[in-house]
Amino acid sequence: MDPDEIIRLRRDFHRHAEPAFLEIRTSSIVVARLRGLGIEVRRGAEAMRTDGVARYPDAATRERMRGRAVESGADPDLAACAAGEGTAVIAEIAGDRPGPTWGVRCDMDALPLTEATDEDHRPTALGFACQDGFMHACGHDGHTAIGIALAARLSDHDFPGRVRILFQPAEEGGRGAAAMIAAGAADGIDRFVAVHLGLGLPSGLVAGGCEGLLATHKLRAVYRGEAAHASGTPERGRNALVGAASALLNVMALPRYAAADTRLNVGTLHGGDNVNIVPSYAEMTLEARSTDADICDALTARVEGVLRGAAAMHDLTVEIERTGGSTTMTCDRQLVDAIAAIAAEKYGDGRAVALRPLGGSDDASLFAREVQGAGGLATYMLVGGGNRAPHHHPSFDIDEASIPVAVDVLEALLRGTPNGRTQ
Amino acid sequence: MDPDEIIRLRRDFHRHAEPAFLEIRTSSIVVARLRGLGIEVRRGAEAMRTDGVARYPDAATRERMRGRAVESGADPDLAACAAGEGTAVIAEIAGDRPGPTWGVRCDMDALPLTEATDEDHRPTALGFACQDGFMHACGHDGHTAIGIALAARLSDHDFPGRVRILFQPAEEGGRGAAAMIAAGAADGIDRFVAVHLGLGLPSGLVAGGCEGLLATHKLRAVYRGEAAHASGTPERGRNALVGAASALLNVMALPRYAAADTRLNVGTLHGGDNVNIVPSYAEMTLEARSTDADICDALTARVEGVLRGAAAMHDLTVEIERTGGSTTMTCDRQLVDAIAAIAAEKYGDGRAVALRPLGGSDDASLFAREVQGAGGLATYMLVGGGNRAPHHHPSFDIDEASIPVAVDVLEALLRGTPNGRTQ
Amino acid sequence: MDPDEIIRLRRDFHRHAEPAFLEIRTSSIVVARLRGLGIEVRRGAEAMRTDGVARYPDAATRERMRGRAVESGADPDLAACAAGEGTAVIAEIAGDRPGPTWGVRCDMDALPLTEATDEDHRPTALGFACQDGFMHACGHDGHTAIGIALAARLSDHDFPGRVRILFQPAEEGGRGAAAMIAAGAADGIDRFVAVHLGLGLPSGLVAGGCEGLLATHKLRAVYRGEAAHASGTPERGRNALVGAASALLNVMALPRYAAADTRLNVGTLHGGDNVNIVPSYAEMTLEARSTDADICDALTARVEGVLRGAAAMHDLTVEIERTGGSTTMTCDRQLVDAIAAIAAEKYGDGRAVALRPLGGSDDASLFAREVQGAGGLATYMLVGGGNRAPHHHPSFDIDEASIPVAVDVLEALLRGTPNGRTQ
Amino acid sequence: MDPDEIIRLRRDFHRHAEPAFLEIRTSSIVVARLRGLGIEVRRGAEAMRTDGVARYPDAATRERMRGRAVESGADPDLAACAAGEGTAVIAEIAGDRPGPTWGVRCDMDALPLTEATDEDHRPTALGFACQDGFMHACGHDGHTAIGIALAARLSDHDFPGRVRILFQPAEEGGRGAAAMIAAGAADGIDRFVAVHLGLGLPSGLVAGGCEGLLATHKLRAVYRGEAAHASGTPERGRNALVGAASALLNVMALPRYAAADTRLNVGTLHGGDNVNIVPSYAEMTLEARSTDADICDALTARVEGVLRGAAAMHDLTVEIERTGGSTTMTCDRQLVDAIAAIAAEKYGDGRAVALRPLGGSDDASLFAREVQGAGGLATYMLVGGGNRAPHHHPSFDIDEASIPVAVDVLEALLRGTPNGRTQ
Repeated sequence: MDPDEIIRLRRDFHRHAEPAFLEIRTSSIVVARLRGLGIEVRRGAEAMRTDGVARYPDAATRERMRGRAVESGADPDLAACAAGEGTAVIAEIAGDRPGPTWGVRCDMDALPLTEATDEDHRPTALGFACQDGFMHACGHDGHTAIGIALAARLSDHDFPGRVRILFQPAEEGGRGAAAMIAAGAADGIDRFVAVHLGLGLPSGLVAGGCEGLLATHKLRAVYRGEAAHASGTPERGRNALVGAASALLNVMALPRYAAADTRLNVGTLHGGDNVNIVPSYAEMTLEARSTDADICDALTARVEGVLRGAAAMHDLTVEIERTGGSTTMTCDRQLVDAIAAIAAEKYGDGRAVALRPLGGSDDASLFAREVQGAGGLATYMLVGGGNRAPHHHPSFDIDEASIPVAVDVLEALLRGTPNGRTQ
Repeated sequence: MDPDEIIRLRRDFHRHAEPAFLEIRTSSIVVARLRGLGIEVRRGAEAMRTDGVARYPDAATRERMRGRAVESGADPDLAACAAGEGTAVIAEIAGDRPGPTWGVRCDMDALPLTEATDEDHRPTALGFACQDGFMHACGHDGHTAIGIALAARLSDHDFPGRVRILFQPAEEGGRGAAAMIAAGAADGIDRFVAVHLGLGLPSGLVAGGCEGLLATHKLRAVYRGEAAHASGTPERGRNALVGAASALLNVMALPRYAAADTRLNVGTLHGGDNVNIVPSYAEMTLEARSTDADICDALTARVEGVLRGAAAMHDLTVEIERTGGSTTMTCDRQLVDAIAAIAAEKYGDGRAVALRPLGGSDDASLFAREVQGAGGLATYMLVGGGNRAPHHHPSFDIDEASIPVAVDVLEALLRGTPNGRTQ
Repeated sequence: MDPDEIIRLRRDFHRHAEPAFLEIRTSSIVVARLRGLGIEVRRGAEAMRTDGVARYPDAATRERMRGRAVESGADPDLAACAAGEGTAVIAEIAGDRPGPTWGVRCDMDALPLTEATDEDHRPTALGFACQDGFMHACGHDGHTAIGIALAARLSDHDFPGRVRILFQPAEEGGRGAAAMIAAGAADGIDRFVAVHLGLGLPSGLVAGGCEGLLATHKLRAVYRGEAAHASGTPERGRNALVGAASALLNVMALPRYAAADTRLNVGTLHGGDNVNIVPSYAEMTLEARSTDADICDALTARVEGVLRGAAAMHDLTVEIERTGGSTTMTCDRQLVDAIAAIAAEKYGDGRAVALRPLGGSDDASLFAREVQGAGGLATYMLVGGGNRAPHHHPSFDIDEASIPVAVDVLEALLRGTPNGRTQ
Repeated sequence: MDPDEIIRLRRDFHRHAEPAFLEIRTSSIVVARLRGLGIEVRRGAEAMRTDGVARYPDAATRERMRGRAVESGADPDLAACAAGEGTAVIAEIAGDRPGPTWGVRCDMDALPLTEATDEDHRPTALGFACQDGFMHACGHDGHTAIGIALAARLSDHDFPGRVRILFQPAEEGGRGAAAMIAAGAADGIDRFVAVHLGLGLPSGLVAGGCEGLLATHKLRAVYRGEAAHASGTPERGRNALVGAASALLNVMALPRYAAADTRLNVGTLHGGDNVNIVPSYAEMTLEARSTDADICDALTARVEGVLRGAAAMHDLTVEIERTGGSTTMTCDRQLVDAIAAIAAEKYGDGRAVALRPLGGSDDASLFAREVQGAGGLATYMLVGGGNRAPHHHPSFDIDEASIPVAVDVLEALLRGTPNGRTQ
């Protein structure tokens, strides 16, 4: 698959961005493409378990997104399966000679963010911006395209061992990897590589691994009080929004940690009924992170203490749910160096580095924990995309020339060619 | 129109509750009924002005509600007019002898509140609860039925002067009366009566007027900051939700006033994009009230100061809009006594009182201001509904036997019969 | 005692203002004056019980204030008794003929407030402002002078019954009346009058009683967390100031009540150790009030709920103490009218009113509850002082001409003269 | 000076702890000891500039602390000079042969913290805890003892170059170093060493330098509103405590930074007048820190924005003052290695390390900036004290055996002996 086609694929995914667990069109196109290449595919219930997933989209939402997917070109049968059983896809390709089993993680989900509409934003200028309140503001459109391109390249079977490409839903929010692992997606993987574009690195720079991936817990808290007429009987109300607003401020006001980096974010808050009703309901989503998994746990416990104390202040009930998460990850040097060596060979030393710090979280870490726990190796490879706006920003965009670079390096790594042999 | 039919009408409106400016089905049925009685009707642009209305529902919302209205029995043409031009309806009936022009205000809108689903809630038990997230939790379903029944009774023209029944949209939030006044709905009225059911009074008790109606301003504030990846670059974000939460707490923490009763409520707050994005957006609706109109103005100015200061704290922008409101109202003793006398005559002294305190706001006060300003008289008549749950509560309900009482008293008042003559 | 001397007394008390339970100099001068008139005096332990008083000043503070009192002219022995046993003073004078026992309450304490220093402030301009961080910003300096003047007038015993003048400490904060009642100060009183100057009324206007006195609870809350180096190990701290600040905002954000007037105030907050230490300690004083005693109790319970919830949010401990309070009071019409009649007779109808609304609290209400509970009568008499700045404001001052008015009216009331007879 | 005497000195300083710029007794004893050794001393105005120091203690406070110093053994004349001109002391000793000029910084101030009183706290058990609400909870008592012991050792002049020992006031809060630099204390220094005990390192471990010293700004904010009677006219108040509490929460809720470590602390808050007065005044001290000096500046600007916005919310005035601060510091490898080599030689490799991370701030960084800016070298040497409780905690204590270790290593460094030669 040539670079132009890879980029066309990416733009198509970008234009039809779909959020977590609703990657119905994306998933359908992935399956269709892989089948077109003659590749064995596991999908739906064979690729992920939806039971036990917190906040899994309800049937009505999936049905609505299924309709949108079919309207914009998805195969109806594939879309129905993805909507009904799950959007994960696993492509497994056998090499023509012995070798290890590789796992390559490509995530597919977008964010519920309204994309920038100014002409300085290239997807808008070129007409492939998403117009539905979702946005690929983290590069996963590129990752999905990379996964398909890599499958196309390796469909000649000219490589040692086996390659399993993991098209993962719901990386944002940290729920998709666990759902795939529950379906056995990590079983038997000896070498695991996640790939990520962007990250503020110069376009085309390749890092063999990353440092500082943060463990995270995602939470949802629902406050319930008592509605009342805001003028006639305000004292009969129990104000859920006052409690939630206090929780928000006090969560953000928890201490910085000296022992590790931490992050806190209350990402959304929705509450209240009408301007003249004492608010009886409020719901927030929030997250804690740390470069130390134990500190992430401890910080999350403090967050939950704040959430409960805020409810007690105003005689509210609060339900707290841990909706997702991921852990820290230490990249194995053998894989890091192998990738850096390939990049140096292909593009020169100036384009290759070993480890780069990464200030985010990724539930690829859960795949890595499985693989490393079973004695395997794992890394998290970065390919710079020259993005000026940060990830998760309405103006986020990457230099598309970086996408084929990722495909080329991964192909070399998996083929075990002289300039990238890892065994 | 007999009591059973009045109650059937009320239950029908209840089941198909519609919020402010979206009373499309209600309006259509009102018009159809009035026409069936041979009564002259002004509707749409003849009954209200939609330009200049803050937060008027957008076309898509009106279209969706129009569809719902037609599906549940509204006449398609009437619904199209109501959706396109406005939902207000004015019925004008001429008496067969000289006399003053009366205006009777009946409001039609429901609240965006989810109705109680337990069997103790009579509309649920009897199967006429609304199931769409709207609820007649303030008795306007009864008011609309009263207006129709009154028109039916007076369609014999056997009364002095003229009667204009004002079927008003959007009393909640305080926008509908002003929109009707802008279309001339108050012009020429000599005697104005608003009617309200419920209010915690014993069922069937009639009060000739009320005291303590609060002036109010309704506000909408929109905070905008800057989105950013909550882990990778949190410092690049400007957090709209932290600003809005601070505004909420500090508005509620403004001082009580010794010089007059005041109320404050932040009714709704919605903000943020996703759990892992620094929130770039938050929107709240809020209100200030007071039994003194000047203090309501002063308090609202302080609220706006808090809203702006909270934006300044976090380098946010804030747009503040006054979306509606109403003023105080002093009921004229002549009308108060006339109504009380009718009720005493009909039901005995134990069922009739002059003035009752009322802890709410109503933009009927704007009609009253117009009428009284032109030398006319006005009152705000109450009919107890024995409600146990307060207004705006998911379990609000009234004793339906109170509805025909309101019709009977108004009929007597307007006919100028011996037991209720006001001239 | 002539008006000039009354005013000299008032200015002396003003210049040497003393706060709650530390009215050592004031008390000593009261006792010395009364003794000079040959009046029987109960003081110290005979006039009040200090055990059970919340937040009674510690010995070091009383010792320091005792020294200040002696330095500024107090009799050393009297000051020692007041510092050691309590500052309350009770003067009891027997009339020469039968009659009821009257109680007249005169409070003596000042506020911990820094007095205005501009020349527009009359005490400053005339050189009798207090310069020690205390201030008679509520008129109690005048009340104490009234009590002495009244005793001087009645030392001729030419009146029926008995008169007990209650020189009360610690009216601010609501602790002094209860301490005196515990020592029997209210026993046997048939008619109770409290007197208050100022209150925004025109100078010299006399009101026979007041309406709307608010019940109140005064609270003290102490938060304790854990100190830590703010940079080296901030996560080991538990931040008492973050908890206290949240409590403050959330107390103030409790709902307004429709059923009665309410007030909330967090009057003081002190916390933290040093700029670079996570705060381990915070202390606040606060109050709730209402025109309905039950609602005052309910509101106070909500305040305590907020205080505890805020502690829970940040894993703090909180000690909550109710340090004082008072209740509502209904003035008996017989006394109200008697006072109004005296004033009308003396100064004309324009200077006399029956009841005036009063937006404050006073633990004179506890005396009244005792007296009325035993079948007696009580009122709370107001004498306007023409104050422009409100009570408790650094620029508060009253027209001194109003002070002799209060003495004259009380004298007439107690003597039962024709123009003021109550029996 | 032998170890026992060094420890006796430390305990004496500990028992008589004095906070920033009030190290009057400490300073007097330092001068007396140095003079006893025949060493030339600069003190008072020769050692520091007090003009331009923010929040310099007022004359009354200095006078009170001077009295306490004299009562507890300070020479009256020396104490008078320290109280009047400043507490800094500079000892300068010339070596008997050519060489560089060394500066050694020993800070002297304690914290306003109440020391633990339980017997597990060794200063309490041994009877040298401070009982006056101040506490050496950061080891400066040991630093001062080290400075005196070092001067005693070097009073034989058997070393190359010159040694200037800088006894600095007010390290806590970051004001003392700048005041000394303003008096020329850093002029001509070629090699600068600051020494710090404790820091959670094993007792006796020596680190040649530190990494991660944070830049910091210390701030003081004063809010002023309008007092009012909390019940009678609360609406006339402008509540300074509500503003300050909001500022506190919102400062703490500012974002974590991904680009550098940051810290925020509101260390103290004091406000309000009395429980029944709307608070007209509030004062807070706070600090921002970062491992990046530019980010510290940017974060401080955001803090100031929050402080101003909070004032705007409630129509308050706010005065913001930057009261102190320090910067980051990079230790020069030549000095780091020299110290580590001495420690390894003396105590074995297990007791010597090069660089250790340090999670705090120290205005020794300002001396370092001066020295390095003029081409010299600087380091910040750590000597572990085995402290279990963190710095600034009421139970902080260090193993006293570590104090002579610091003296020995510094002596070797300055003498340039074979095992520690740096030239």
